[in-house]
Amino acid sequence: MLYEISEKAIQLENQGKEIIKFNLGDPDLPTPPEIIEAAYDAMKQGKTKYSSAAGEKVLREELAKIHDVPVENVVVTTGSKWGIFSLLFLTLKPGDNIVVPSPHWTSYALGAKKVGAEIRLLKRDLESDWSIDPEKLEALIDDKTKMIFLNSPNNPTSKVIDDKTFREIVEIAKSKGVKVMSDEVYSDISFVKAKSILDFGDENILVSGFSKTFLMTGWRIGYVVAEKELVKQMIKLNQITTTCVPAFIQYGALKGLESRQKIADDIRNQFKLRAEAAYSVLSKSPMKFSKPDAPFYLFPKVDGLDSERFALDLLDHGVAVAPGTAFGDYREFFRIALTAGEDKIKEGLEKICEALP
Amino acid sequence: MLYEISEKAIQLENQGKEIIKFNLGDPDLPTPPEIIEAAYDAMKQGKTKYSSAAGEKVLREELAKIHDVPVENVVVTTGSKWGIFSLLFLTLKPGDNIVVPSPHWTSYALGAKKVGAEIRLLKRDLESDWSIDPEKLEALIDDKTKMIFLNSPNNPTSKVIDDKTFREIVEIAKSKGVKVMSDEVYSDISFVKAKSILDFGDENILVSGFSKTFLMTGWRIGYVVAEKELVKQMIKLNQITTTCVPAFIQYGALKGLESRQKIADDIRNQFKLRAEAAYSVLSKSPMKFSKPDAPFYLFPKVDGLDSERFALDLLDHGVAVAPGTAFGDYREFFRIALTAGEDKIKEGLEKICEALP
Repeated sequence: MLYEISEKAIQLENQGKEIIKFNLGDPDLPTPPEIIEAAYDAMKQGKTKYSSAAGEKVLREELAKIHDVPVENVVVTTGSKWGIFSLLFLTLKPGDNIVVPSPHWTSYALGAKKVGAEIRLLKRDLESDWSIDPEKLEALIDDKTKMIFLNSPNNPTSKVIDDKTFREIVEIAKSKGVKVMSDEVYSDISFVKAKSILDFGDENILVSGFSKTFLMTGWRIGYVVAEKELVKQMIKLNQITTTCVPAFIQYGALKGLESRQKIADDIRNQFKLRAEAAYSVLSKSPMKFSKPDAPFYLFPKVDGLDSERFALDLLDHGVAVAPGTAFGDYREFFRIALTAGEDKIKEGLEKICEALP
Repeated sequence: MLYEISEKAIQLENQGKEIIKFNLGDPDLPTPPEIIEAAYDAMKQGKTKYSSAAGEKVLREELAKIHDVPVENVVVTTGSKWGIFSLLFLTLKPGDNIVVPSPHWTSYALGAKKVGAEIRLLKRDLESDWSIDPEKLEALIDDKTKMIFLNSPNNPTSKVIDDKTFREIVEIAKSKGVKVMSDEVYSDISFVKAKSILDFGDENILVSGFSKTFLMTGWRIGYVVAEKELVKQMIKLNQITTTCVPAFIQYGALKGLESRQKIADDIRNQFKLRAEAAYSVLSKSPMKFSKPDAPFYLFPKVDGLDSERFALDLLDHGVAVAPGTAFGDYREFFRIALTAGEDKIKEGLEKICEALP
């Protein structure tokens, strides 16, 4: 359905219609020029040949330093999504399962299904501010469970898991002998401090990437921090699939890391203003929603809404959003990605308010 | 073993030793500057966002035109290797098999194994100039066979399959209800005209890429031409794994296609000179080998050789090669990639001759 919306939005644009696109987690801001220049310099210096399936040594070392882990525990991946798919492919057999608090990113479910595994969803609700009940999560784990997937800040709710709950989940995982996969791709630009899985020891798995913090969505570069044996398996899988992330892209990413704080601060500040602008419009509407802890999403609810139908109809009003059903059993919800300038956000949200059934 | 040789070569270089590297199919020549400039321009124009999982429309259209197929039959992949792995992953169940003339590229076997499938090798020999016996190939096919893998020009022998044999294999495949996957990544730079699988109808699968013809090994861009339904499945798999090839890389590749003939001619001419230089040295040695039909490889035989041991020992003489065992049951063979200038090729080959047991 996400894909259908996206394709229809592009069709309408090709017909000359203006569509305000809130449907994808792809920021409108350009990749910082210093990253582009660093990638270009690397290309000219011949960094265009086969590179290590583990990642360029300098980049792995820098990531290891940032996360305070040995370099052998880091592998660079063709986007964080490839990191996640690799983990699913390498860790799960048909019939195994993963436990995932919902609403959740579509790719977790699609990836698990593709490797023949089950995804067990822990339903969360807006009324409890999207919090996770560790006891309910524990109840979903059985002897076929291989991983718990966390995503804080979360897509689509933009909520951060509080420290106490995070710790409880890690302890449950440990006691049950399952791993936590923590997707922290929105972490560096979070409005509130978000805990990392690595704050609770080194037995679990961190997945992150450059797409969101460094506005590099289309560059396809992410990374995984995990135990050495698993990292070795991921490197071997890279060798027979994607081979490597282009080295010049890795040098672009490395340049980004040099200015990590500044770039993250800039993005956070811009999205904070956008979130506030959105908040002020939506607060006057009948929509119910939770205040975001991070970019880029709002996930409002309209009682009785059929969000798939609403998302399709809304395109005729010139706005694209993602229906809640793309993130689990959330038919009355839809996701707004604040990936447009402040004025466009206000305009788009007003159109949404007008179009509400 | 390939990986071990490669790592040891890098270690020796880090210790200050000079190693002539004939071990990888990674040309020493740089990516043509017009490709680099086109990629840079695309980056600056904002082609840094999520792009289609099928490939950029303009690139797909250009590839469709070159191969004279509808655009819906083309998908751009993260290297031809990812195209091949996708095909294995989507087409084979555990217990299924593929039939592959050997010697063969390592990745076919590793990919098949990774998805739980069997690889059935048709042994070829130097004495019959690496020709394929279609009857023997047919005898390997059973009801679990899903694909026949062809690779012409071939890695590691650099031999082209003759037209008659190619046609016979396609007919066998058709009569048995299996597909031919034809890896034609060396085709554009072949010294002799190589038939394409598409010359025999449109039921089969072409895999190709930009690595060899456009000296873009590290850029990770390839493509697959197949029936629409299979292409759709590959696009869906891209959506949940690699997402897309970075759009700016695709614009670099598109620029390459504009000068396709000229770039391919340049590379072919350079490698023809290298192959002739190599031929003149090796002809004076006790090595037996077949004259290459294409870049980049020679695959000589030395009676009684243990090529794994030889390849490791040879590193101490300052030359890296790939042992024949990396390409099947070819212990007495080794692969020389002519990925160095003419002088270095002569020097390296003379060192090899001296080191022969």
